[in-house]
Amino acid sequence: MIAEIVSVGTELLLGQITDSNAQRLGVLFAECGIDHYHRQTVGDNLTRLTEALNLALSRSSIVITIGGLGPTEDDLTRDGIAAALEDELVVDDGVAKLLKEIFRRRGLPWTETQLRQAMRPRCGEPIANPNGTAPGLICRKDGKVVVALPGPPQELIPMIEGPVRTLLLELGGGGMLVSRTARICGLGEAFVEERIRDLIHASDPTVAPYAKPTELHLRITTRARSQPEGESRIQGVIDELTKRLGAYLYGFDATTLEMALVEGLALRKETVATAESCTGGLIAGRITSAPGSSDIFPGGIVSYANEVKSRDLGVQEATLAAHGAVSRETAAEMAVGARSHFGTTYGLSVTGIAGPGGGSDEKPVGLVYIGLATATGVEVQRHQFRGTRTIIRERSAQAALNWLWLTHRESDTIVP
Amino acid sequence: MIAEIVSVGTELLLGQITDSNAQRLGVLFAECGIDHYHRQTVGDNLTRLTEALNLALSRSSIVITIGGLGPTEDDLTRDGIAAALEDELVVDDGVAKLLKEIFRRRGLPWTETQLRQAMRPRCGEPIANPNGTAPGLICRKDGKVVVALPGPPQELIPMIEGPVRTLLLELGGGGMLVSRTARICGLGEAFVEERIRDLIHASDPTVAPYAKPTELHLRITTRARSQPEGESRIQGVIDELTKRLGAYLYGFDATTLEMALVEGLALRKETVATAESCTGGLIAGRITSAPGSSDIFPGGIVSYANEVKSRDLGVQEATLAAHGAVSRETAAEMAVGARSHFGTTYGLSVTGIAGPGGGSDEKPVGLVYIGLATATGVEVQRHQFRGTRTIIRERSAQAALNWLWLTHRESDTIVP
Repeated sequence: MIAEIVSVGTELLLGQITDSNAQRLGVLFAECGIDHYHRQTVGDNLTRLTEALNLALSRSSIVITIGGLGPTEDDLTRDGIAAALEDELVVDDGVAKLLKEIFRRRGLPWTETQLRQAMRPRCGEPIANPNGTAPGLICRKDGKVVVALPGPPQELIPMIEGPVRTLLLELGGGGMLVSRTARICGLGEAFVEERIRDLIHASDPTVAPYAKPTELHLRITTRARSQPEGESRIQGVIDELTKRLGAYLYGFDATTLEMALVEGLALRKETVATAESCTGGLIAGRITSAPGSSDIFPGGIVSYANEVKSRDLGVQEATLAAHGAVSRETAAEMAVGARSHFGTTYGLSVTGIAGPGGGSDEKPVGLVYIGLATATGVEVQRHQFRGTRTIIRERSAQAALNWLWLTHRESDTIVP
Repeated sequence: MIAEIVSVGTELLLGQITDSNAQRLGVLFAECGIDHYHRQTVGDNLTRLTEALNLALSRSSIVITIGGLGPTEDDLTRDGIAAALEDELVVDDGVAKLLKEIFRRRGLPWTETQLRQAMRPRCGEPIANPNGTAPGLICRKDGKVVVALPGPPQELIPMIEGPVRTLLLELGGGGMLVSRTARICGLGEAFVEERIRDLIHASDPTVAPYAKPTELHLRITTRARSQPEGESRIQGVIDELTKRLGAYLYGFDATTLEMALVEGLALRKETVATAESCTGGLIAGRITSAPGSSDIFPGGIVSYANEVKSRDLGVQEATLAAHGAVSRETAAEMAVGARSHFGTTYGLSVTGIAGPGGGSDEKPVGLVYIGLATATGVEVQRHQFRGTRTIIRERSAQAALNWLWLTHRESDTIVP
């Protein structure tokens, strides 16, 4: 069973609002086991709306419109549906009575314009609207189903969570999509894809990669008759992914890297302190975004000025003079200093040139050193990032957290 | 001139992401005087993508695709455009060289899969991508223009603000929308609306309020024959807004509060240091997001643990014992401590309960104290925020930055 959304409204085309309703419906289709291959957006124009509906009806069994159900002359969705279904518009007496009652209760003057909201194609049934005046519509004709929903989310959501979900579950024939997202840090999309090509090409469960700004998500999806059935089928893929990607696969679904890190360090009774220059607090901010972070993070120092690096982190003035603030040597001393000042298991430091100014031929914008001090010593990574100041800072913070995550997992015997 | 967007990606149909890119392009069309009547969304399927492009080319002169330019087999937009334009795909030697260079510099293994990103229809020219690997494309054939843009917003935005805007202004040929955004901190939407109701009801220039999570934007728009003509008309409204909103109107367009703050403090040769508990580095992270922040921000301390508050900020143990870490007294001593430790004009502190755990009847989740120390003493604000851990932390950081901004402007005689 294939469904298609037609979003109606010039304000959508002008970019005045985002189409969050269409996103919600997309999720609902997946949950109800209904395929969804196309979406169209048109303005408040009867010819173009009718064309869009005809195209949708030619390739999809279920067509859902969003918007254009209000009382004004711009609200043309009812007319478009009637034209596309070659049906006539009639007044729904029940809805008309209800509308007049609402107006009376609110003490608003009744105008005949309002009656537009009580119109429906002859084949249509109204869907009650507890949060507004215009009802939705379910129209069935010639084996096709057209559902019309109002645009305001507070009116649309109760309809899609109630009668529309029931209808779609019925039409979808019981099957549902179950999916989980595996989250991967520190590996590129192409690299991961080569390692799991056979899983990506498998037809059930499907595995789809989504590159996020600083990490990679793999969405594993299967069609099942129940949630537990789907989940157990997905678990097989998860086991295989874990075997092939090891610690780079850090968590699932809503678990962020910082949540996984806080949990992982707490489990081993380990702690970390930060010393940040170019990231200016971003790493501390990300660590402390995870509930429970106070167990593993006593604090950090944002050492933007050189004298702070010396006074608070013990970076030697000779080091700064000989190698500069952005150097392997300074990163190492910052990490060691943070670890010793806060008395933690790990000391994590970042120093670099985020731009836009401050770069040179020798030390260009995007050059970033990350230091990681442990009980056995200190190591430094050199990165050359590209992009805006914001992107360079975010990638630096991400690289630092990735490294800490992978390092704290290295001692694990359970991980391949 | 009519333009049409074709958004590509199964994740859009599944509702996993919102199509904010299409919204941005819709705004750009309006600004460039280009009509926009339809939008289509299709999944990662070559047949359906090619059909959608053929339909778009049959009714629109400019077709812009979003997404599907990555290196994987799911990335089919180049193939679809070549098919729809009846052109062949060739490797762009310049792009291929650049890609190999990026991989070499990052120390990543080069795989032939990556070469997909260097492919283009013979009639296409690449658009440089400073924030990623896949370039965009501008293809001109038989009087039609097809533009292909990458899906990640940080890659798409620089393209639409740069070469795509230039192209569309050229193609739109004539009338254009000119607009500026006034940015307001520390005042609610209803409050501002009452003060500028006459401006909001004026027909040219129009003034439209947009409530953002932590601030308010007023978009001022007019249609003009040239940029200077539009700008001079908008300046009159800006002068009036400045008169009515004073220092609360902190900047325009892309100027963030932290940029305005860095510039404002630098102008007065003032500096600030931070002492953060529940915000855990967010304030330092925001200040240092602004270029030039090293002139006004030597550093900060993230004092998550109590012993860090005592040792590094000089909060007295008696204060912590008598009033607790989340208290007016601790916030005051943290702010004074940060100011004296770093030798700055201002010391800004935050201590509070971000949740989800740690709240009590007396000190519920969302209770936050902000301290601001100056040469003349220290003041503390008490806030009770509502929302998730993330929201409470973000609102705390925003309230602290608002207060610092308004305080540093108070001595100005130029401001009403």
